[in-house]
Amino acid sequence: MNYLLTVAFDGKNFCGWQFQPEKRTVQAVITEASNKLFKCKCAVTGCSRTDSGVHALGFRCTVKPENGDAVISADKLPLAYSSLLPEDISVLAAETVSDDFHPRYATITKEYEYRVLNSRIPDPFSVGRVFRYPAPIGEEGIERMRVAAEYICGTHDFTAFMASGSKITDAVRTVKFCRVERVGNVIYINVAADGFLYNMVRIIVGTLLDVGRGELAPERVGEIISSRNRRLAGSTAPACGLYLKNVIYE
Amino acid sequence: MNYLLTVAFDGKNFCGWQFQPEKRTVQAVITEASNKLFKCKCAVTGCSRTDSGVHALGFRCTVKPENGDAVISADKLPLAYSSLLPEDISVLAAETVSDDFHPRYATITKEYEYRVLNSRIPDPFSVGRVFRYPAPIGEEGIERMRVAAEYICGTHDFTAFMASGSKITDAVRTVKFCRVERVGNVIYINVAADGFLYNMVRIIVGTLLDVGRGELAPERVGEIISSRNRRLAGSTAPACGLYLKNVIYE
Repeated sequence: MNYLLTVAFDGKNFCGWQFQPEKRTVQAVITEASNKLFKCKCAVTGCSRTDSGVHALGFRCTVKPENGDAVISADKLPLAYSSLLPEDISVLAAETVSDDFHPRYATITKEYEYRVLNSRIPDPFSVGRVFRYPAPIGEEGIERMRVAAEYICGTHDFTAFMASGSKITDAVRTVKFCRVERVGNVIYINVAADGFLYNMVRIIVGTLLDVGRGELAPERVGEIISSRNRRLAGSTAPACGLYLKNVIYE
Repeated sequence: MNYLLTVAFDGKNFCGWQFQPEKRTVQAVITEASNKLFKCKCAVTGCSRTDSGVHALGFRCTVKPENGDAVISADKLPLAYSSLLPEDISVLAAETVSDDFHPRYATITKEYEYRVLNSRIPDPFSVGRVFRYPAPIGEEGIERMRVAAEYICGTHDFTAFMASGSKITDAVRTVKFCRVERVGNVIYINVAADGFLYNMVRIIVGTLLDVGRGELAPERVGEIISSRNRRLAGSTAPACGLYLKNVIYE
């Protein structure tokens, strides 16, 4: 049996998804709960690595119990996991998939959301869950960010938006949408693509914020992409504002 | 000088508003920050006591520096406090008021919000900030709660909705509104009154939830008020779902 889980987690107290010795990771916590639940060793495979502090609203992973007899009806899994997982992680949904389904390679589109609290005053209820950005960005700034976001959309070599030192050789990705919305004093930036380079969303956000506060002309974003020069793009926005929102399979 | 502050705090790690020896309270934390800010002892007076774990979106308190020379422009206070307060508390706004203004006695209306997560599955992002209530309450249940809420409105003796053991002799209060709204799987219950008895909102919520899941007929709420019998009302909903939302002065 191979189960595909949809998982939400508050990334604040996790060192990202992937197993690391002596570190609290999401993969380790889900594996431990799965082993207890299915009463056997389980192989847990994620749709992507996430960095320390990054959150998830709809992370996907598969759980494959080594003991083929260990069958639990998929619709019972969210509630069953809820009594085994700590409070900063939840299984929202579960379904069965074929044995050879791989939650990373089967991905067609991944969507991230980035949340910016545009305020000089901190908000006690969103600490560690937004990036607080004090420089005021008005309605005009949001419009500029939307113009800039249009340059991000489409198929480009995104080397300029990849953490320097990455070993990826093919940096061409297709961004399906890049939306900027403001609700109250929170700016939501949603980016969907067929794949992302390391830190790509966070560098896009850092660059769009430079555009928002008037530091960078929107048209410059097109030129930065063409330059393939990481140093021309904005700084990397912090992990705490980033949410893996959705993964779409065939 | 006498300043009136509007304060938001996440109550999770506070033992309520009021000073208590050896305990972390909101009053103690604001007093400490104020003493530093004004470089003198400050008298800090709150609009109400709040229980351990209760949150605030718009708590009010006055800050009166003992040294009359210690004058800071009120509009500078929110930012000035932000560098002195811990991350679970913020000053949202400040104004000057007359020396004899008392944030408790001058209150005309106080509004509380109670948040119920109506879900069998926990949400990692609202732990400690909602009361998770697994019994499903559908649209029909919400309608029943609204009918019941109408009985709460108006001027009544609310002895049945007061924590047993309270020493209050006059339990007559005027509830100005009691609204029930559902957004996704969160039920918001907003109650405004000229004053509240101890645990009154939390007992109202416990009772409305009994109505919502069909345990109690909406009309019974009128009879429970008339009975003045605490044992007939529902249980006290936990502190973690309660927010002091707004205080209205003349």
